[in-house]
Amino acid sequence: MTTAHHEDRLSGQIQFILEIDKLKRVLRRNLLIDGSRRENDAEHSWHLGMLALVMAEHAEPGVNLDRVVRMLLVHDIVEIDAGDTFIYDVVAVEAQEAAERAAADRIFGLLPGDQATEFRALWDEFEARETPEARFAKALDRLAPIMANHHNEGGTWALYKVTARQVREKVAIISDGSATLGAFAVDLVETSVARGHLAP
Amino acid sequence: MTTAHHEDRLSGQIQFILEIDKLKRVLRRNLLIDGSRRENDAEHSWHLGMLALVMAEHAEPGVNLDRVVRMLLVHDIVEIDAGDTFIYDVVAVEAQEAAERAAADRIFGLLPGDQATEFRALWDEFEARETPEARFAKALDRLAPIMANHHNEGGTWALYKVTARQVREKVAIISDGSATLGAFAVDLVETSVARGHLAP
Ligand SMILES: [Ca+2]
Repeated sequence: MTTAHHEDRLSGQIQFILEIDKLKRVLRRNLLIDGSRRENDAEHSWHLGMLALVMAEHAEPGVNLDRVVRMLLVHDIVEIDAGDTFIYDVVAVEAQEAAERAAADRIFGLLPGDQATEFRALWDEFEARETPEARFAKALDRLAPIMANHHNEGGTWALYKVTARQVREKVAIISDGSATLGAFAVDLVETSVARGHLAP
Repeated sequence: MTTAHHEDRLSGQIQFILEIDKLKRVLRRNLLIDGSRRENDAEHSWHLGMLALVMAEHAEPGVNLDRVVRMLLVHDIVEIDAGDTFIYDVVAVEAQEAAERAAADRIFGLLPGDQATEFRALWDEFEARETPEARFAKALDRLAPIMANHHNEGGTWALYKVTARQVREKVAIISDGSATLGAFAVDLVETSVARGHLAP
């Protein structure tokens, strides 16, 4: 391969790295654990990567942990264009899908072709939630805001009038990826209901 | 192993996950690429994980990329207690080392013993910069703020009166981990000097 070829690859890689810096400006609904401000997608993605490393033993046996981490690092990048969707807003979630696919085309498309395909495949796998790796990754993505709300006297649950019934549906997704973390999430939810931080 | 044993492990793991949320509040000297605000350590760590995945081909052949990513996700956690050190402040860098070791003891010590050892080993490996994985990880950690300053008309270089000579020493660390990225960083630095954004 020529030097020009290498320079083209590096140039696309740098463009991608500069572009995804914008994920630090995409705000989520939930607050930090200390309640001081809303969380952004980039720091959320880091926290999920750490959750995967720390909670590995609670995944299905044989899960490829490093693919879980990679999936979690890329899983929200499409929100640079498509914005964060509040998971309890069903209409928005459906309308969001086309916008996210277009975002994936554009943003991963900044990379050299082989890498665009590789990163897109990670995102598609996460979204499809068919592999044990994707189920575990999605479980962690659902667990994190429940932990944050639990530690913020209900946090965004109260603000957006989310009920325990709706949260329990998300907990089912956690149980799909990890029985132990599903049971832990049930505890958090029921404790929050008992404390009056989550409407029954 | 008993249920109580499992619950103890999960309890330590959750404590650790809650504790490291504080990394989102540790501010670095450099700004985001768009210049809008200072970057925090958690979103920085995510960006470095992405840099590792994207720039893998520019590392030494045979580098274990997943260990690089793990190292980058944990590398700044000690700054929750020890704070960010400006790498151009030599006196502060030396005084910082004891504080960071104490922080590593306390924070990784929240985890079950085997995991505390595992995460501490990743951080020690990063700091020692003796393995190809650590050299590549450190190269990315040095490259990111140079990119940010380059895109912010000198950013923190101007603010903290950093000179090109000092930056070139950091670039040597980048070249140690990746010849291609070292050459790229040299270009950024010399362009910044030529534009008057970095004092010669
Ligand atoms: Ca640092």
